[in-house]
Formats: sequence, structure tokens, C-alpha cells
Amino acid sequence: MTDTQKLAEQLLAGERRALARAITLVESAREDHRATARELLERLGHSGRQAVRIGLSGTPGVGKSTFIEAFGMMLTEQGLRVAVLAVDPSSARTGGSILGDKTRMERLSRDPNAFIRPSPSQTHLGGVARRTREAVALCEASGFDVVLIETVGVGQSETVVAEMCDLFLLLLAPAGGDELQGVKRGIMEMADLILVNKADGDLKPAATRTCSDYAGALRLMRKRPQDPEGFPKALMVSALHEDGLNTAWEEMSALIEWRRENGHFDGRRQAQAQYWFEQEVRQGLLARLDTAAAREAMALAAKDVASGEKTPTAAAGEVLAALKDN
Amino acid sequence: MTDTQKLAEQLLAGERRALARAITLVESAREDHRATARELLERLGHSGRQAVRIGLSGTPGVGKSTFIEAFGMMLTEQGLRVAVLAVDPSSARTGGSILGDKTRMERLSRDPNAFIRPSPSQTHLGGVARRTREAVALCEASGFDVVLIETVGVGQSETVVAEMCDLFLLLLAPAGGDELQGVKRGIMEMADLILVNKADGDLKPAATRTCSDYAGALRLMRKRPQDPEGFPKALMVSALHEDGLNTAWEEMSALIEWRRENGHFDGRRQAQAQYWFEQEVRQGLLARLDTAAAREAMALAAKDVASGEKTPTAAAGEVLAALKDN
Repeated sequence: MTDTQKLAEQLLAGERRALARAITLVESAREDHRATARELLERLGHSGRQAVRIGLSGTPGVGKSTFIEAFGMMLTEQGLRVAVLAVDPSSARTGGSILGDKTRMERLSRDPNAFIRPSPSQTHLGGVARRTREAVALCEASGFDVVLIETVGVGQSETVVAEMCDLFLLLLAPAGGDELQGVKRGIMEMADLILVNKADGDLKPAATRTCSDYAGALRLMRKRPQDPEGFPKALMVSALHEDGLNTAWEEMSALIEWRRENGHFDGRRQAQAQYWFEQEVRQGLLARLDTAAAREAMALAAKDVASGEKTPTAAAGEVLAALKDN
Repeated sequence: MTDTQKLAEQLLAGERRALARAITLVESAREDHRATARELLERLGHSGRQAVRIGLSGTPGVGKSTFIEAFGMMLTEQGLRVAVLAVDPSSARTGGSILGDKTRMERLSRDPNAFIRPSPSQTHLGGVARRTREAVALCEASGFDVVLIETVGVGQSETVVAEMCDLFLLLLAPAGGDELQGVKRGIMEMADLILVNKADGDLKPAATRTCSDYAGALRLMRKRPQDPEGFPKALMVSALHEDGLNTAWEEMSALIEWRRENGHFDGRRQAQAQYWFEQEVRQGLLARLDTAAAREAMALAAKDVASGEKTPTAAAGEVLAALKDN
């Protein structure tokens, strides 16, 4: 039995260390690791196992870690196995990484039915996307029932996460007054469920108002074909007091159920697979610029462009011709 | 003398019909037209003529046409030659095109020192960008002093325009109350000058308030190295009453002057040329997906991906290998 076969079998048997090793493998940029990762994914591709993939977005301060810990614990108490991954294109820049500090989720990280994986440090969102997608597939093959994919509210990471999820949650904190403007319209349109966290203590009235503001805003949005009546929805939760989490999970389950029955669940997964296929092709083509020879040719041509010796179009034509010959 | 040589000489002599024909040539997607266009641009590249390139953004209703007509007339009355171009990636979808209706600028379109060119119908923003960039170069070679590039406030067209301009103007209408939220932060950050139009009649008080709101917001922004003290600025104008246009032009001229003296004018043009060079290389690579054979291979592979037979990564690998062989 080859090492890859063995890893696949351990992973299918639900061994956590095998899963962790497999994720390390798909995160690697080394060419031999990539080849092994492809072989592994190919082997696991027909496991037939499917988790509910839930994307979770929220800016720092809304209580994402507390929510994930409380929500994750609630799910494992119901006998479900929960994996938590993160997409954080900023981690390479800041040096930190979300979920990096597992102590923020002390209980969940010790739970045998939970698996938490911090985001890898990557500069390139395309690379982050592929690795996360592959990590999701590994978690599914490993028998997890729910995969939570966390992201921070920056740049395009929401789009990346939404394109690999069955459900997209937006976590918000209560705010005073006119806070609708703080959330980008595009992110609101992705959300299946808006959860206003910290609906406890002093903040309860503000949470109620914020929740009702968002519920109103959601009602004004055009109904999407993939939604039953009443969705997308805004709900209040308190991760701290573990309030409203079960209701939120029931709403998610009902939505998933409806989408499965109406063909939207599979339809979305198919559309996502096609989307990632096209992204992979585009990125694969652009990767041809990522060799030492190509970078050198680009730098030389860029000089001629800056000096005005060549037009951008002419210089680009020469570089493209050189790339074709090699 | 070849046709291209002749066209180049007529264009350098400032013949308007030669300019119009040359722009039609660069707008064409036909391969032989592209070759002729490249030859023409190469010939004109060393004319040494330079216009002030001014980008102008503003959503429908702010009075862009009225502003361009009044501002353009003021410039031609000072003896300057003015060309007006448009970047409108939406025109292909809507069937219309901005600047399409020249009757909205009746006086300017009859002015012998002005040249107005509606946006071509294009679906692809990359294509729009290249053609507009080349049209700007043609206008410069043809001896225009000012090239105005208009865009509507949608999608990425502002970025495209900002990357080909020396100056970027944002035209706004007066608004009641809290209107700052209506303008995307990214667009405000691009603006060198915010012009609050319709500062006349009933709307004067609202214009004053709006202008002061924006002036305040601009002061809160980090100072950019390419700006002298006091920039970016917010000013009131009335295109209808031709009020404030001269002041606005004086501010623009002062800013350009300062940037020229401090090396930022040339620096920006060089950075823009490099940016477009890189864009051209990327688009050139991606254009390999735009052949009938590549589209067919993509469609076939996409089916296997949707059915779950192949992973996105595996299918992409096969398509990329096939592209390499051809």
C-alpha cells in the first residue's frame, strides 16, 4: 500500500491526525506535494460523504470566535462532527491569522468531535481559495457533518467563501443608529442568514433595533430563486449566553432541507464546481508569468514601457510571443 | 506612401476626419485592423505631444453632459482644443451609450476646436480600456490640449479611467442630509477634485452643505504624496449658469503644474504605462481561452465537473495541458 493510499484510508476512518497531515499536504506549494495532494483528492473524491458547508463572515469585534465556539459546541452536543476552517488573505500581510489563537476557542478545540484548523499564511487569494476548497473536501471525506468556513470582512474573501459554501452567514454586532451603511451591499446580498450577536445585557435593545433594521433591509431585496418564503432572515443571538443558537441552526437546517428538495442544493454545488474549474484554468494560465524567466522578461519590458521606448501594447505583444515559444 | 502613413500625417496635421477614422480603426476587433492600428500608434508614438488627461465620473443625474458642454466651451474659448471620450462598459448591455446623444452637447459638438466621441459598444472592460487608451493617444497626437474621459459610476470603470488620467474629477449633485454614504470610498480616494454641480437657484443651500460635507470628509483622508497642500478639494459649480468653471480649471491647472514640478506627473504616467503593460500581458494570456477550440474544450470539461466525474482542479489541469500543446 502506498503512503497516499494509507493516508486516504486513515482519513476515511476519521483519524484526526491523518486529516491534519492531509491538510498540511494540500497547503504546500511544493510540486511533489501538489502531485500527492491531487492523487489523494482523487482517491477521496468518490467517498460520497457530504457535509453542510457554512460560510461565516464578520468584521473583527462582532464576536466571531465566541460564536463559533458556542455554535460548534451546541452542534457537537447534538452528536454532529464539526470542522472549522478559515480564509484569511490578510494573514500573510499582518503576520497573524484568524483562528490562529486556538485558546480563543478552548472548549471547542478540546472537543473530540470538533476539528479547528487555522488559516495558512498565503499572499495569493487564488492559492488560499484552492487550498481551502481542498481542505473542505478532506473534512467531508473524513466524515464531518458541518464544515464552518470563517472569513474576515475584507476584500474579496467573502466571494471566495460564498463560492464554496451551501449557506452564508453574516455575523454583526449591535450598533447605535444608522449602521446599515457599514455593511457592503454585496455582502448583504450573499447572506442567507444575518445574525446579530451580543443580544444580551445592556446591548439587548440595540441588538433588537439592529436586527429589525436588517430584517427591513432584507425584505426590500429582490427574492432569490434559491430561497423559500421568508429568507434571507435576520435573527438575534447571544453567543456569550448561548441564546438563539439552536433557533439559528433550525433555520439553517430548514433552508438546506428546502433547497435539497427543490434541487437548489445540488444546483449550487454544480455551479460552484464549474466556477472553480474556470478559476483554476485562468489561474493556471496566469501562473505562466510566475516563472523566473517570465518575471525577468516582464521586468525588462516594463523598463522600456516606463521610459516610453515601447507602448504597453507592443511590449506586451513581445512578452506574450516569448511565452508562447517556451 | 502607405495608407497608414497618410492617415498618420493627416492626423498629425489635426484633421478631424482622420482622427475619427483612426479611432474607428483602434475600436475594431478585426485582426487586420488591429495590426494597422498598432502600426499607426507606433508611428504616432513619438509625436511628443501631450494633452492634460482629465477623468470625469458621476452617476446619471448629476449633470455630466451639461458640465462637459459648459466646461468644454469655456476651454475652447480660451483657445484650447478639447476632446471628449467615454468609457462605458454598460453600453453593450443597455444598448445605449453615454455621450451617444451628441444633441445633449449641441454647442460643443459644433465647436471646431472640440471633438466628441461616443463610447463604443463593448462587453469586455479590458477591451474598452485598451481602445480608450489608444483613442487618448490618437487625440494627443492630433494636437488636443485637453482630453476629457467620461465614465458613469458603475463597476470598475472608474479604476480604468483613473489609470489613464492625469487628473480625476468626481461630479456630484447636491443632496439633502447624510449623503456621504452614497459615494463609494474607493471613488472618493481617486478624486483630485470633487465638484458639486447645480449650485444654483433652489439647490444652492443644499450644494453649499454638500460641498462642505465633502470638504470635511476629504480633510480626514490621509494626505497623498502626489498632492500639494489643500488637495484633494471640493468645489461648487453650476454648469447651467457657467459658474465656478473657471475657478475649477485654475485649480486643475495649479495641481498639474505642481505635479509636473515635483515629478509626480511623469511618475504617474510611467506607473500607468507599466500597469497597462501588465494588464495587456494578463489579458493576452487569458485570450487563449477565447478560441473556438478552447471554448469547446472548456465546455466539455465543465460538464464532467458538474457531474462530479472530475474535480475542478483535475479538469483544469487537463484543459491547461491541451492549451499548451496547441
